[in-house]
Amino acid sequence: MQRWKLTVEYDGRPFQGWQLQPHGPSVQQCLEEAVLRFSGETVRLHASGRTDAGVHARGQVCHFDLEKPMAADKVRDALNFHLRPNPVSVLAVEAVDGDFHARLSCKGRAYLYRILNRRAPPALEAGRVWHVGHELDAAAMHAAAQRLVGRHDFTSFRASLCQANSPVKTLDVLDVSRHGEEIHVVARARSFLHHQVRNMVGTLKLVGEGKWTADDVAAALAARDRAKAGPTAPPDGLCFTEAWY
Amino acid sequence: MQRWKLTVEYDGRPFQGWQLQPHGPSVQQCLEEAVLRFSGETVRLHASGRTDAGVHARGQVCHFDLEKPMAADKVRDALNFHLRPNPVSVLAVEAVDGDFHARLSCKGRAYLYRILNRRAPPALEAGRVWHVGHELDAAAMHAAAQRLVGRHDFTSFRASLCQANSPVKTLDVLDVSRHGEEIHVVARARSFLHHQVRNMVGTLKLVGEGKWTADDVAAALAARDRAKAGPTAPPDGLCFTEAWY
Repeated sequence: MQRWKLTVEYDGRPFQGWQLQPHGPSVQQCLEEAVLRFSGETVRLHASGRTDAGVHARGQVCHFDLEKPMAADKVRDALNFHLRPNPVSVLAVEAVDGDFHARLSCKGRAYLYRILNRRAPPALEAGRVWHVGHELDAAAMHAAAQRLVGRHDFTSFRASLCQANSPVKTLDVLDVSRHGEEIHVVARARSFLHHQVRNMVGTLKLVGEGKWTADDVAAALAARDRAKAGPTAPPDGLCFTEAWY
Repeated sequence: MQRWKLTVEYDGRPFQGWQLQPHGPSVQQCLEEAVLRFSGETVRLHASGRTDAGVHARGQVCHFDLEKPMAADKVRDALNFHLRPNPVSVLAVEAVDGDFHARLSCKGRAYLYRILNRRAPPALEAGRVWHVGHELDAAAMHAAAQRLVGRHDFTSFRASLCQANSPVKTLDVLDVSRHGEEIHVVARARSFLHHQVRNMVGTLKLVGEGKWTADDVAAALAARDRAKAGPTAPPDGLCFTEAWY
């Protein structure tokens, strides 16, 4: 038996999310079926973190155990062959010890949220960005974002469905920067609450459009009440970029 | 009557190409129908250059004439409203003189061709890049590309369907550079022959994989015979980036 660590890229649009769902396709299902097809083995995949419907990844990490001995490159190529034509690609495969666990061993996660900030809607990046047609002040968003960095009770930015034991998390990085027509929000933490990044982005957008100040963001955080923060940004702009161990 | 110049972005995947086709959707048809819906006027659009099926654009330029007087911003917003849900977006609209012609007045065009050069197939960029799984030498490709720059008879890189009067064109720029996992080919010229960029990229790939030398590329050009150059690269990686006047 060998435990395999996979680094996976996917386009979230056709999926109900990472996790197996009773109705509709999931990334997990695609990968588990690809493993079954090349190895004949029914496995269970574990990911560093679930992603919601429509959320993308270019560095999701997951693991599974395989009885059949194989070289890492063969596992990668066999998976990619059987994943077609789904928009899921295995970038890297690594043999790991049996005590490695994609979720439990994970020391941190990073997300990128892309806002397309121009009048015209996206054509090339449709489904991959959040389109905001009026101008946002990225510098003001960045300054306000710093009020969320650190160890806090993030109840105000937590989905009601969130299953985490505690709403207290340490947010290491929340950087907002403009790149031409795009505004990028980079978030890094050991772990995140459900919808935390999208709820933070939806709140920072209020700052970008001048409706909220940085103090309003700090007050929303302190309120520990989801109703006091901004709306949830759409999944389109969100991409799981990295998990580290 | 006002002549309008449009700058247009589109995802080429669902289209038979820019030009109206008897079967299948075209970008031109989408835009002409959008004009009809907001203005009631049946117009004919003229583009700086046609793009083939599956080729993208982020700076295609076209023009049309409208009887109805309107502000430029209203034309842009009305077009974008009626273009939904097609992946076509009007980035800019400008009122121009009646002697402006998107094709005939055009002083130059630029294309970007993206190669995804890694083992794993694309998931996020599927349909937007040419996937080449074995390593290409971008520096060798760039050096060979310089043998194509200048005024030449490009018969060896011209599609049999090409309708241009002369195969002699001046290629101003053909730059190849690596950006992480991607290799970018930038081509700039007053005008191009049909399939010229894709045929040059398909030939440079042979250099990148060590099968051809720069001298082989120069010999293929000198042969003035399509059969002597490399294969046509797929449309996926090609994007019309700019037209200037």
